[in-house]
Amino acid sequence: MSALQPPPAASAERTTVQRVVGHTVTSATDLLAVEAPLEISLAYGPVGQRQTHALAVTMRTPGHDAELVAGFLLSEGVVQQAADIEALTPRADPRRPEERGNVLRAELAPGVVLELDRLERHFYTTSSCGVCGKTSIAAVRASSCPTPPPADSPRVSAAIIHALPERQRAAQRVFEQTGGLHATALFSAAGELLLVREDVGRHNAFDKVVGAALLAGQVPLSQQIILVSGRASFELVQKAAVAGVAILAAVGAPSSLAVEAAEEFGLTLLGFVRNDRFNIYTHAHRITD
Amino acid sequence: MSALQPPPAASAERTTVQRVVGHTVTSATDLLAVEAPLEISLAYGPVGQRQTHALAVTMRTPGHDAELVAGFLLSEGVVQQAADIEALTPRADPRRPEERGNVLRAELAPGVVLELDRLERHFYTTSSCGVCGKTSIAAVRASSCPTPPPADSPRVSAAIIHALPERQRAAQRVFEQTGGLHATALFSAAGELLLVREDVGRHNAFDKVVGAALLAGQVPLSQQIILVSGRASFELVQKAAVAGVAILAAVGAPSSLAVEAAEEFGLTLLGFVRNDRFNIYTHAHRITD
Repeated sequence: MSALQPPPAASAERTTVQRVVGHTVTSATDLLAVEAPLEISLAYGPVGQRQTHALAVTMRTPGHDAELVAGFLLSEGVVQQAADIEALTPRADPRRPEERGNVLRAELAPGVVLELDRLERHFYTTSSCGVCGKTSIAAVRASSCPTPPPADSPRVSAAIIHALPERQRAAQRVFEQTGGLHATALFSAAGELLLVREDVGRHNAFDKVVGAALLAGQVPLSQQIILVSGRASFELVQKAAVAGVAILAAVGAPSSLAVEAAEEFGLTLLGFVRNDRFNIYTHAHRITD
Repeated sequence: MSALQPPPAASAERTTVQRVVGHTVTSATDLLAVEAPLEISLAYGPVGQRQTHALAVTMRTPGHDAELVAGFLLSEGVVQQAADIEALTPRADPRRPEERGNVLRAELAPGVVLELDRLERHFYTTSSCGVCGKTSIAAVRASSCPTPPPADSPRVSAAIIHALPERQRAAQRVFEQTGGLHATALFSAAGELLLVREDVGRHNAFDKVVGAALLAGQVPLSQQIILVSGRASFELVQKAAVAGVAILAAVGAPSSLAVEAAEEFGLTLLGFVRNDRFNIYTHAHRITD
């Protein structure tokens, strides 16, 4: 997680378009953000009794797939720590050339118990609580989800928050080219950019950042700030809570349930972070003048 | 689908924020786009042997829930026509007050066959082909998905396309207040705004429009134009194809797979539709000077 890596070339691809300006039509070259399916497959169980399970398919921008899967597994409650994942390897089945690069298998440590029933209930809803694994509407609304305690969480000045979006944008190479990618960035409490990831899916960009941190042994992220390029939904707040994030900032608007969840989970939620302005929705004590 | 209905009051809710401008902090009132879970429940099977199945939970902005469910069921291949749905009714279980307004049951016609296995495979991936119901990565990539034939599809002038975003924005009341909603609008081939729906989820806004059209007996939408306020993903192109849409326009960028799918399904895909400009990605013959 030390270096800022540029997005891999496969994140964008060229296409020919007809460009219409007023009534004038010209042929032009355009860059598209790449969207491709990634199948997440699990190998689990005690040594000698390993089983496999196709867990999910997500539409993602190729690149940093191992990080994406690690973050996804943490968000979904499949793993609790980096040691729960023994390996993350692309599956290469010569009989299925179309899958090349689009299937990633996570080898879970033998001691990890996979609750397939819970996971299936979990996927039945996209909105269930990743903190406690509850899946009903009652759970979404419940106040019984355990709050990850950001006990020693930082206090950050408004000036540091104001500086984040420009630092994120400067690192977003593909976004500038295609206009088609969401970004998530991880900053230190001093505002130093640690990592940025882009994806056609906003949850994927978030999972990539959290997964990179997990694999680097840096979760919980209670000392860092996460900035997302778009809006803050309930699900992003939930993912942040699972990763132990204390300050979640969004360039766009939060939803009502994002604010409720942030309040409940003890997160400081900032919205409309741009042009030297932002709103503090919850737990304002972490932001200083 | 005749009248433009304003979004219901429950689409936005007030909250108190700390507004930071530079180094100045003031208390202010802000409007949030409402995000709340909706459980979609099915009743199906022959008379006398009816069964129920909890199909999915989606995070949506309340309002137009019946349309959302109708559009979702069409997109997912559960129903093919309005007559397949006998009723769409909120479930009111007095033992579960927290569900009030957040569970909607679709009563399918007795003749509708529910392929639960296929649906479960289908939900396992968010990206499977709703046209043919295939769920593997091979299917996502395959060219064997049937193309809905927009046989008598319209030809539309660039001037009509240029006018769409402003007409959509003028009808987007909640978006202007909260900045937190996606919109999907349905236009006639002459550029007349027929319907606009907003939601925290872009797929939901799309499903609401398609569902309203389905319930009004107006699917396939081969004579209309759909405009989405954000980006065009594979899944939106797929939903458009299932609804028989011939022209899909996006204010934002399309992804690579959105372009591939539009090419394959015979859709005209337009991107970056704003400020008197747009790009034509596929099937340009439907756009005239």
